[in-house]
Amino acid sequence: MKKLINKPEDFIRENLEGMAAAHPDFIKVNYEPAFVYRADAPIQGKVAIISGGGSGHEPMHAGFVGMGMLDAACPGEVFTSPTPDQMLEAAKRVDGGAGILCIVKNYSGDVMNFEMATELARSEGIRVLNILIDDDVAVKDSLYTQGRRGVGTTVLAEKICGAAAQQGYDLQKIADLCRFVNINGRSMGMALTSCTVPARMTPTFELGDREIEMGIGIHGEPGRQRKSLTSADEITEMLALSIIEDSPYTRTVREWDEEQGEWMDVELIDPLFQQGDRVLAFVNSMGGTPISELYIIYRKLAEICEKKGLQIVRNLIGPYITSLDMQGCSITLLKLDDELIRLWDAPVKTPSLQWGV
Amino acid sequence: MKKLINKPEDFIRENLEGMAAAHPDFIKVNYEPAFVYRADAPIQGKVAIISGGGSGHEPMHAGFVGMGMLDAACPGEVFTSPTPDQMLEAAKRVDGGAGILCIVKNYSGDVMNFEMATELARSEGIRVLNILIDDDVAVKDSLYTQGRRGVGTTVLAEKICGAAAQQGYDLQKIADLCRFVNINGRSMGMALTSCTVPARMTPTFELGDREIEMGIGIHGEPGRQRKSLTSADEITEMLALSIIEDSPYTRTVREWDEEQGEWMDVELIDPLFQQGDRVLAFVNSMGGTPISELYIIYRKLAEICEKKGLQIVRNLIGPYITSLDMQGCSITLLKLDDELIRLWDAPVKTPSLQWGV
Repeated sequence: MKKLINKPEDFIRENLEGMAAAHPDFIKVNYEPAFVYRADAPIQGKVAIISGGGSGHEPMHAGFVGMGMLDAACPGEVFTSPTPDQMLEAAKRVDGGAGILCIVKNYSGDVMNFEMATELARSEGIRVLNILIDDDVAVKDSLYTQGRRGVGTTVLAEKICGAAAQQGYDLQKIADLCRFVNINGRSMGMALTSCTVPARMTPTFELGDREIEMGIGIHGEPGRQRKSLTSADEITEMLALSIIEDSPYTRTVREWDEEQGEWMDVELIDPLFQQGDRVLAFVNSMGGTPISELYIIYRKLAEICEKKGLQIVRNLIGPYITSLDMQGCSITLLKLDDELIRLWDAPVKTPSLQWGV
Repeated sequence: MKKLINKPEDFIRENLEGMAAAHPDFIKVNYEPAFVYRADAPIQGKVAIISGGGSGHEPMHAGFVGMGMLDAACPGEVFTSPTPDQMLEAAKRVDGGAGILCIVKNYSGDVMNFEMATELARSEGIRVLNILIDDDVAVKDSLYTQGRRGVGTTVLAEKICGAAAQQGYDLQKIADLCRFVNINGRSMGMALTSCTVPARMTPTFELGDREIEMGIGIHGEPGRQRKSLTSADEITEMLALSIIEDSPYTRTVREWDEEQGEWMDVELIDPLFQQGDRVLAFVNSMGGTPISELYIIYRKLAEICEKKGLQIVRNLIGPYITSLDMQGCSITLLKLDDELIRLWDAPVKTPSLQWGV
């Protein structure tokens, strides 16, 4: 395997140094501990949005820091949760007095470390709420996960909640919004090839010359099944129908209850997709798949949605939540209402997502 | 090799169908002959900008059709020039009475077919000027090229000339501007892996497990040298110094002379980069290289430019002119003046490049 890197141990720092050099008007980088934050933070009176997770999914999350999206992103080592001190220091840097929403992908390490960071921040007088994203319909539990994994809906939640924060929503309202986005978003991915972690330089998993992995995780975790390579149309159909025809999904998540001052169990149930729903269709590259192939996937997805009575009213097509150099794609469908559409359309200016300004 | 495609012979059409389905607000697609055009074309009184070339370099060119950039793009078969009838029909569709500038990458087939299309359009009363892009410092002549190949500067020329057209520049002024961008832009690329053309499904060229190709062409044409894999920093240095320390480059190109009513030879000389120059730095993925690695390249490029006294005042980082699934990158430096900066910053709204709106 070959990569454009220097020493593997410098991969993340040098990536951040490159971002800092490229986008001084959007972002700044703190290196010890590592986090990327809005150049104009803290913004007094605005709820701050923080996300983070293992590196290797670029541009998520650091590429989404900026006006109308994240206030800070905390990158862990490759495919490894960031540590609580990263989130704590980021929270202190971007807190504008209106509280902080942490958008957390449902992986055990991330969940635990964000909860610890939340408690540390609270002990320093900063209001923090955490909302989990667990949108991957592929598997119930996984290598690093209790319950479903958090994948593509994370990008959409960061955009929508970032817009809400920019427009002055308060912390509780943004937390409710983020939970609403999560239960209305569902995703599934697939891999043509493995990814290769820089520190190892051997493929994370083996996949035959004519094999694909359906339901792949963004760290190369096993999916639902290994299949023979088939057409883009059949792959799209398998992904899209897994999402659209998914059963009701009920789970209990831990969220901080501000009134009670303690962690409470909250039961979440995803609504089903129904004829007439308006959706955002997100076709994502796993990193190594070029955009020409994504449009071939989108073509079939649009046809399937039309047949199923789902109206695609917004879309996002490109590499946004990746798995290093993995070839493959994922599909996310998010049920939209007028408020989500308005927030999706709102101006955003980050290194990797920009419109309206 | 595995790809997300259906039948290889449907690759381009299905890619276009996906684009049409995804971006009906930006673009429309004509299939026989194939071209992508602005949904709001023709725009009366505005110069129209057309580009095109072989497919396989997505998002270039179709992803750059829209407000502030291209009026139409003509995709050929993969790595194969479009035919004159594509350009002619596109010209007729987007002509708003103020003439058409064709931005042509310097490959023999493209040059010949765009010249033929120009003559056909003129015979139908449409004013057309062609400007060549030949910015690749890697090799003097190449597999498909007399003189230098046209690569990354094409993207920048399309953005800048598109903005000029949007702002009401006349045809001659835009042609002069495009020529100016071309002589002020220089590029070089490299490959970690080959690309694979869908119709063949075997790599276009062989590259060993520890080998890289410096100066690769965007169709996999041989570059300057094959080397052992080295660090991102050394690769960046080789690319950047090849560009910055390039000798003066003189060549004669054919351009249509409207006053004389015939093709004339024009001598072009590229100015050298000099201390104090302001530049746009463009770090491009060949398709399979993720953005994390591009930032590692950018980091070193910024350091080299600073040492050389070049001030990076704008940048573009991502997959914009690709070679299917090839892993690797290219660097383009474009010397900027106030006018180019203003036009670069102007609003653009296309499927793959968007800001300011």
